[in-house]
Amino acid sequence: MQSAPKKLGVEAVWWDGDAVGYLDQRALPQAVVHKRATSVDEIVDAIRTLAVRGAPAIGVFGAYGVALAADLHADAAFASAAQRIREARPTAVNLAWAVDRLLSGDRATLLDEARRIHDEQREIDRRIGAAAIDLFPKNANVLTHCNTGPIATAGEGTALGTIIAAQRAGKNLHVFVDETRPLLQGARLTMVELREAGVPATLIVDGAAAITMARNAIAAVVVGADRITRNGDTANKIGTYGLAIVAAHHGIPFYVAAPRSTFDFALASGDAIPIEERSPDEVRISPEDAVYNPAFDVTPGRLIAGFITEYGVLSPPYDEAIPDLESRPNIGVLIR
Amino acid sequence: MQSAPKKLGVEAVWWDGDAVGYLDQRALPQAVVHKRATSVDEIVDAIRTLAVRGAPAIGVFGAYGVALAADLHADAAFASAAQRIREARPTAVNLAWAVDRLLSGDRATLLDEARRIHDEQREIDRRIGAAAIDLFPKNANVLTHCNTGPIATAGEGTALGTIIAAQRAGKNLHVFVDETRPLLQGARLTMVELREAGVPATLIVDGAAAITMARNAIAAVVVGADRITRNGDTANKIGTYGLAIVAAHHGIPFYVAAPRSTFDFALASGDAIPIEERSPDEVRISPEDAVYNPAFDVTPGRLIAGFITEYGVLSPPYDEAIPDLESRPNIGVLIR
Repeated sequence: MQSAPKKLGVEAVWWDGDAVGYLDQRALPQAVVHKRATSVDEIVDAIRTLAVRGAPAIGVFGAYGVALAADLHADAAFASAAQRIREARPTAVNLAWAVDRLLSGDRATLLDEARRIHDEQREIDRRIGAAAIDLFPKNANVLTHCNTGPIATAGEGTALGTIIAAQRAGKNLHVFVDETRPLLQGARLTMVELREAGVPATLIVDGAAAITMARNAIAAVVVGADRITRNGDTANKIGTYGLAIVAAHHGIPFYVAAPRSTFDFALASGDAIPIEERSPDEVRISPEDAVYNPAFDVTPGRLIAGFITEYGVLSPPYDEAIPDLESRPNIGVLIR
Repeated sequence: MQSAPKKLGVEAVWWDGDAVGYLDQRALPQAVVHKRATSVDEIVDAIRTLAVRGAPAIGVFGAYGVALAADLHADAAFASAAQRIREARPTAVNLAWAVDRLLSGDRATLLDEARRIHDEQREIDRRIGAAAIDLFPKNANVLTHCNTGPIATAGEGTALGTIIAAQRAGKNLHVFVDETRPLLQGARLTMVELREAGVPATLIVDGAAAITMARNAIAAVVVGADRITRNGDTANKIGTYGLAIVAAHHGIPFYVAAPRSTFDFALASGDAIPIEERSPDEVRISPEDAVYNPAFDVTPGRLIAGFITEYGVLSPPYDEAIPDLESRPNIGVLIR
């Protein structure tokens, strides 16, 4: 049953001369496939088809994509290309945030700015990892959902980054990983990343999370986020909301690890977050079946024990802690 | 996107001269495959590999299997064959119940007794369906998990039978169906049965049940059971426990539909139910991944609004209602 772990080799996303390089996440775990996007169509397609996924990684990829678009297109065509990239997926806020940040700057230095966003993401992830270490007891079981490691952020990872950082700090954790239907990011990506990081992990179907909590002394659940509103309501991969309810039922703290750029300070609550519905074919076996396939759900802030950010762990009440986070500078100001 | 519904044609299980006929549920929904088991090995294999599944259907199939074993084997070999059938799967109590019932009778009339068990199952399912009708409001959304229709019971179905019976009674229901990982009984079997029955249905991934409850006015959740203890603790397909917690969180009544033969009156609580763990290969993509793959979980009785049985709906307190059910005769006494 043993086979060699597949080394991912490079990062999720990188600038590649006259193209944007990326790890095609759809091919994992069977193959490590690196691709080059040389047009805006390819950038948009890679985001839409989840070749590049993970809210922070999409942000970095979108930023490089805008830099690529500037190389390829004159002013009017560039503006429309940037808009197409910005709207390639609707739920995560990082993509729109990164595109807007580039568009607000000097067109001559777009690539520099994209690289800064990427560098900042790496630093943010390091700080998120450091902020979380005290949340995990030694020799504990933890549980996670979807994929939030290095390939999801183009840095060190958010939720999975906290687990890996804690492991490096000697916590001796064991991770239960939701497979995360329909697209199996947990089974395909998180299991690979944990193996590379040397963290013991056990895969479960999403429906087994409840019995796992009841029988396996789970110390904490930690997940990522695609968008967080001012009251702490959190859009994340479908299945997160149910997981948070089940964790609360078992008295297990439920943490969300996300950078400041995932917070949408303009939205008062999760009711206003657009929820992407994806193709029925991701779920059904028979083509005649009707399917409801929301890619995300919204977890109310009251089910969340804390937000692990680059500025430390935010605790309730979130209607104070999140506006306070808004008042902090972008991390770039601190590390330049 | 339209294609003709696949008619299942026959029942889940039937006596076929010198063999036990069955619908090979593994082939659905792509193909309707009928098979004949002509040896005890084939009976045991069909149960273990889930070619025949669903607690009541396994009971009927096991009963026919014991009758087949009696045709094939002399006394000592027969006893060991019956024992092998009895132990083919550990969690559902119906199989052991049916085998024990045959073994306690006259060897000359085993086939008659197996047929009686089958006839009784049909009558039990009809009564379960009738008992549930008042639980469903008109024009309601309901949600179910796994497969509990005719092919799961060799009768009219338990949980799915209640939905189909209510629909026949003019309730105009719409059903959200959990796909039910890892083996997708909801997607593969329940969607086919609901289409055949003319009940509108929408498939969801298991992780989407919570957002479906939050956004779609679900009037009730109804599931089947593999074993129910004296206090109402209920073993059922993995994912049921989490679904019950999520339903409670939304104030949605959670019903379990099951015949008296699914109740294990000898067990005080769910802690004593053996939980079958199945192959990691049902879940993992990479052969090096560790997997925790319990086929069932246990839902505490306190999360269950009622048990829909052939003797009507049992309401809490279950430590009174379930012993009262035990005192009722087997349905066979009533219908003979």
